[in-house]
Amino acid sequence: MRQVRIAMAQINATVGDLDGNAEKIIQAIQRARAEYVDIVTFPELAVTGYPPQDLLLKPQFLHDNRTALQRIIGETQGITAVVGFVDQEDDIYNAAAIIHNQQLLGVQRKAYLPNYGVFDENRYFQAGVPEYIFQIGDVTFGVNICEDIWYPEGPTVIQALSGADLILNISASPYDVGKLAHRQRLTAVRASDSVVVVAYNNLVGGQDRLIFDGGSLIVDQSGQILAQGKLFEEDFIVADIDLDDVARAKLSDPRHRKAVLELKLNATPMLNRISADPIQAKNAPVRKTSVPLEVSDTSDPCKEIYDALTLGLRDYVSKNGFNKVVVGLSGGIDSSLVATIAADALGPENVLGVLMPGPFSSQGSLDDAQTLANNLKIHQQMIPITPIFEAFLRQLQEAFAGRPPDLAEENLQARIRGALLMALSNKFSYLVLTTGNKSEVSVGYATLYGDMAGGLGVISDVTKMMVYALAEYRNKLAGDYLIPKNSLDKAPSAELRANQKDSDSLPEYHILDEILKAYIEHEKSMDDIIALGFDPAVVKDVIRRVDHSEYKRQQAAPGLKVTTKAFGPDRRLPITNKYNG
Amino acid sequence: MRQVRIAMAQINATVGDLDGNAEKIIQAIQRARAEYVDIVTFPELAVTGYPPQDLLLKPQFLHDNRTALQRIIGETQGITAVVGFVDQEDDIYNAAAIIHNQQLLGVQRKAYLPNYGVFDENRYFQAGVPEYIFQIGDVTFGVNICEDIWYPEGPTVIQALSGADLILNISASPYDVGKLAHRQRLTAVRASDSVVVVAYNNLVGGQDRLIFDGGSLIVDQSGQILAQGKLFEEDFIVADIDLDDVARAKLSDPRHRKAVLELKLNATPMLNRISADPIQAKNAPVRKTSVPLEVSDTSDPCKEIYDALTLGLRDYVSKNGFNKVVVGLSGGIDSSLVATIAADALGPENVLGVLMPGPFSSQGSLDDAQTLANNLKIHQQMIPITPIFEAFLRQLQEAFAGRPPDLAEENLQARIRGALLMALSNKFSYLVLTTGNKSEVSVGYATLYGDMAGGLGVISDVTKMMVYALAEYRNKLAGDYLIPKNSLDKAPSAELRANQKDSDSLPEYHILDEILKAYIEHEKSMDDIIALGFDPAVVKDVIRRVDHSEYKRQQAAPGLKVTTKAFGPDRRLPITNKYNG
Repeated sequence: MRQVRIAMAQINATVGDLDGNAEKIIQAIQRARAEYVDIVTFPELAVTGYPPQDLLLKPQFLHDNRTALQRIIGETQGITAVVGFVDQEDDIYNAAAIIHNQQLLGVQRKAYLPNYGVFDENRYFQAGVPEYIFQIGDVTFGVNICEDIWYPEGPTVIQALSGADLILNISASPYDVGKLAHRQRLTAVRASDSVVVVAYNNLVGGQDRLIFDGGSLIVDQSGQILAQGKLFEEDFIVADIDLDDVARAKLSDPRHRKAVLELKLNATPMLNRISADPIQAKNAPVRKTSVPLEVSDTSDPCKEIYDALTLGLRDYVSKNGFNKVVVGLSGGIDSSLVATIAADALGPENVLGVLMPGPFSSQGSLDDAQTLANNLKIHQQMIPITPIFEAFLRQLQEAFAGRPPDLAEENLQARIRGALLMALSNKFSYLVLTTGNKSEVSVGYATLYGDMAGGLGVISDVTKMMVYALAEYRNKLAGDYLIPKNSLDKAPSAELRANQKDSDSLPEYHILDEILKAYIEHEKSMDDIIALGFDPAVVKDVIRRVDHSEYKRQQAAPGLKVTTKAFGPDRRLPITNKYNG
Repeated sequence: MRQVRIAMAQINATVGDLDGNAEKIIQAIQRARAEYVDIVTFPELAVTGYPPQDLLLKPQFLHDNRTALQRIIGETQGITAVVGFVDQEDDIYNAAAIIHNQQLLGVQRKAYLPNYGVFDENRYFQAGVPEYIFQIGDVTFGVNICEDIWYPEGPTVIQALSGADLILNISASPYDVGKLAHRQRLTAVRASDSVVVVAYNNLVGGQDRLIFDGGSLIVDQSGQILAQGKLFEEDFIVADIDLDDVARAKLSDPRHRKAVLELKLNATPMLNRISADPIQAKNAPVRKTSVPLEVSDTSDPCKEIYDALTLGLRDYVSKNGFNKVVVGLSGGIDSSLVATIAADALGPENVLGVLMPGPFSSQGSLDDAQTLANNLKIHQQMIPITPIFEAFLRQLQEAFAGRPPDLAEENLQARIRGALLMALSNKFSYLVLTTGNKSEVSVGYATLYGDMAGGLGVISDVTKMMVYALAEYRNKLAGDYLIPKNSLDKAPSAELRANQKDSDSLPEYHILDEILKAYIEHEKSMDDIIALGFDPAVVKDVIRRVDHSEYKRQQAAPGLKVTTKAFGPDRRLPITNKYNG
C-alpha cells in the first residue's frame, strides 16, 4: 500500500510580517514532523501574507521575503514542505517553494493570475507555466496555486496526466457568502475529472476588507470530501492518503488515456519529474485518514456571515495594534449589531459604547442603547451633543441667516458625534467602528465625517434586511434578547430632525435591498430592474442615489467584504460619471 | 504628390456622457469636413470617456456605447474618422472604429493593455491583435491605441512593414510632470524607427484624480515634430502630410527591408489591407503643413503643474455639477495656493474663503488670509471656532478628566473647521477643497475629517517645496504678491496649540521632501535612503509615519495626480501591514 501522510497548516499570516509568518510556518513544520507527516503545505504567499499589494514593488521587500524562505528551508530536516512565497528571477512570480529535507527541490509558479473583483495580480506578477511534477519515493504530486484550480484547463490537468496522484493547491481565497460550498463543488469536480486527490489549503484571517475563511479541503479521486479545515480560525489538518486507491481508480478510468493521446497528437510534452528520496522511515502508527471529519454546514448564511465579521473585526483591530474599540450607540439595530459583534470578537471589556443624545433623540432610543450595553456588559458613556450643536448654530447664524434648517443641520449633529468619537479615539487609543449598513452606504444615507467617521466599516457590506437576520441569529444563539426587542421592532430613524423616519427618504428596506442587489451585485440596468416589477420612479431614484453617493463611499472606512461585490476595490466606479443607470 | 489632410480633434470627453461625447465628436467631424480634412481622429475611448472603470461591467452601458457609435457613423458622409469606443464580440475590447463615408470600415483593437500605476485594463478588456491596415485611395495607414505605441515591438512595426505610411494613434495618456517631453521623444523614435508619420491624438480634461493634458503630436518619418496640440485645453489640429516624403525616406532606408525579411523567415504574415475609395475631390486649397506650430516649452515644471491643477480642479467641479467652491483660509501657504488656483480655474466670484480663527490662531495669519482674499477678489467669511471648541471641551470634561491636552484637542479644532466648511457646503452647494500638500499627506500630518474633509485634494500630490515654487511662479505671473509675502516667508504652523511649528514634529521640508521622494516615488528602502546621507533616525521616523498614515490616505478626498506616483489607485498599499521600510 502506497500511503502518504499530508498536513495542511491553515495559518493566519499577516501582510508584511515576514519574521512572524516565518516563525508560524516553522512551528507548523515542527508540529508536522512530530506527527510523522510526509508533506506539509501552507497557504498562498504564506511568507508575505496576502495580498501584499504594492509592497511587491519594493526590491527590499522581495529580498527580505527570500531571506525568510531561506530560514524556513533550514528548518525542514526530514520533511517536505510547500510554502507560498514571491519568486524572483527574470521577473517576480506568485510561487510555491517545494522544499525537501533542507533543500529547495523546485518552484511552482502560479499560471493563472486573477485580475478581477478585489484582485490585481497582473499588476505585479508574471504568469508561470506548469513545468514539473514532483516525486518523493513513491509519492508523485503536482503543486498549483489558488486561481490555477479554478480553470478547467488549468495546471491540474497536465500535472495529473503527467502522473501526479496528488495535487497540492495553496490558496488565499477570500470569503463571500456561499463561497465554501462553491469551493467544495469545484475541488470535487477537479479531483474526479483528473482522478487525483486534491489537498486545497486556504488562508485564514482578516486583512483590511478581506476575510479569508480557511475551510481547507481534502477531496479524493471520486470527489468525496475527506477532510475539511475549520472555518474562520487556524487549523492543522492531517490525513493519510492511500495512493493505491488513486492508481486503481485511474486504471479503471478511460478518460485520461484519451486526454494523453490528444496531447501526444498535439506534440504537447508531459511535465518532467523532479525526484527525491523519502527520508523518514514510515514508523508512524498508521492512522486511517482522519475522516470523515465534520464537513461544515454551509446552509446557514447568518452563521457564516456573523463568524466572518467577527474574525474580520478581530484581526483588523489586533493586526493594527489596537486592543479596544469605541462605537456610537444610537439604540438602533445597526450600532447594536456592531457593538455585539465587537463584544464577541474582542471581549466586552474592550468595547466602549457611547450614547450621544441630541435634540431629536428619543428617550426610547437612549433606553434601548443602555439596555444593549448592559446586556453586552460593555463600557458605556453618555455625552450629550446639544450644547455643541447650539454652539455651532450660533457661529453659523450669520452665514445661515434667512435659510430654513435642512440637511446642513442634520449632518452637523452626525459630525459632532463623529468628532466626539474621534476625540475619544485620539485620547484613549480606541479604534472607532462605523455602523453603516450596505443599504445606507449604497444610497448615501449616511453623513461623511459624521457616522461614516471611523477605522473600520463592520457591516458596510451587510444589507439592512441581513442586519435584522444577524441580530435575530445572535439573539437566538443567546437564547434571549441580547439586542433589545425594541431595536428590532421599531421603525428605523436617524433621529436628526423631529419625527424623522428612514422611510421618509427611502423605500422600505425589503424593497430597497432587492433593487440594490439587482443594480450593484447583478449589474442590471434601470430598465431591467423595472421589468422585475418595481415602481419605475422608485428604481430611478434609488439608482440616482447610488450613483451620486460614489464620492462618499470613496472616503469611507474600509468595510469588511461578505458578498460577491462589496464597495471598495471590488467595485471601481468613477465619481465623475454622467452615465445614468 | 500624394497628400493627405488629417485632423486631430483633441476633445475633452466626460466619462459616461455617451450623448454629450457623441455630440462633441459629430461637431468635430462637421468642422473637419468644412476644412476639407480627409481623416479626423479622436482620443482613446472618446465615446465613453476614459477611464470608464466598472461601467464596463454593465451590459447596458456597452450597448449604449455602440448606439452612440452608430449615431456617429451616420454623420461621416464624405470623410474618414477614427473613433475610440468599446467593441464587443466574443469579449470586450478597447477599440478604434475606422469609419469611412458612413460605413464602418474596420475595427482596430488595443493590443497592449496597461495594468500598472493608475491603470486596470486587464480587469476589463481582452487584448486584440493587429489584423489590418487601411487603404483609402492612395493613403495607407495603420491605427493603434495609446499603450500600443509605448512598446518597441508594438503594432506600429508590423503596420509600417505591411505598408502603412501613416500611423494614427489614439490615446488617453494622463499627465505627470515631464510626461509631454517623454511623449515627444517616444513618438519621434517610433516614427523614425518605422519610417512613418505618427499622428498621436491625446485626450484632454480632468477625470477624478487624473488630468489628461492633450499635447497631441504629429511627428514625421525623420522624428521631427510637425505639429502639437495645446496643453490642458481642447484643440483641433489640422495638417497636410506629404506621403511621398514618407515613400522617399523608405526607399532610402535599408532597415525595414531586413525587418521584412526576418518576418518572412519566421513565416509571419503581413497584415491584410482593408481598402476603400476616396470620396472627396481634393478641391481644398493645398495648405502647406500647418507647421512649424509652436512646440510647447516643457522646461518649466511650475507652469505645467499649475496649469494641470487648474484644469483638474475646473473639470472636477464642473463635471460633478458644481459651480462654486469653498476653502478654509489659514493664512498659510497651502490654503493660499489652493484658493489662488481655484480663483484662476473658476473665477474669483465662484470661490469662498472662510477664515476660522481658533484659540491658537495668530493675528498675523488672519491678516495674511484676509490680504490673500482681497488680492484674489474672492468672497470671504469669518467664523471663529473658539466657542464651539469650548462647548466640545465642556462635554468631554468628564471623559477627559485628569488627562493633559494632546492630539485629541488639536484634532478637535481641525474637525470643527471641517464640520463648518461641510455645513456651508450642504447649505449652499459649495464643493469643499482640501488643502493638504503631498508632504503632509505622506506623513499623516493632517487631521482626518478635519482639514482632510472635502471633495477634492487640489495639491495632495504637490510637495511642500513645490507648493512654494508654485506660489512664487504665480506671483511672478501676477507681477506682484498675489499670495502674501508673509505666507511665503513665515515658518509653517498648524496653529493648533501654542507656539506650534511644523518643524516641531517634522524635519525641515527640503529634507522631508527628498526622503519622501526616495521612499514613495523611487521605492527605496530605509537603508538605501540612509546611504544617501540622511540622518538614520529621521529616515526611520519618516518611513514609520508614512506607513502608519495609510489609513488616513485611504479616506482622503481624491487628489489630483501630477507626479509619477500619486496617492490613491496609483499606490495600493495595505493598511494592515507589518513591514517596516
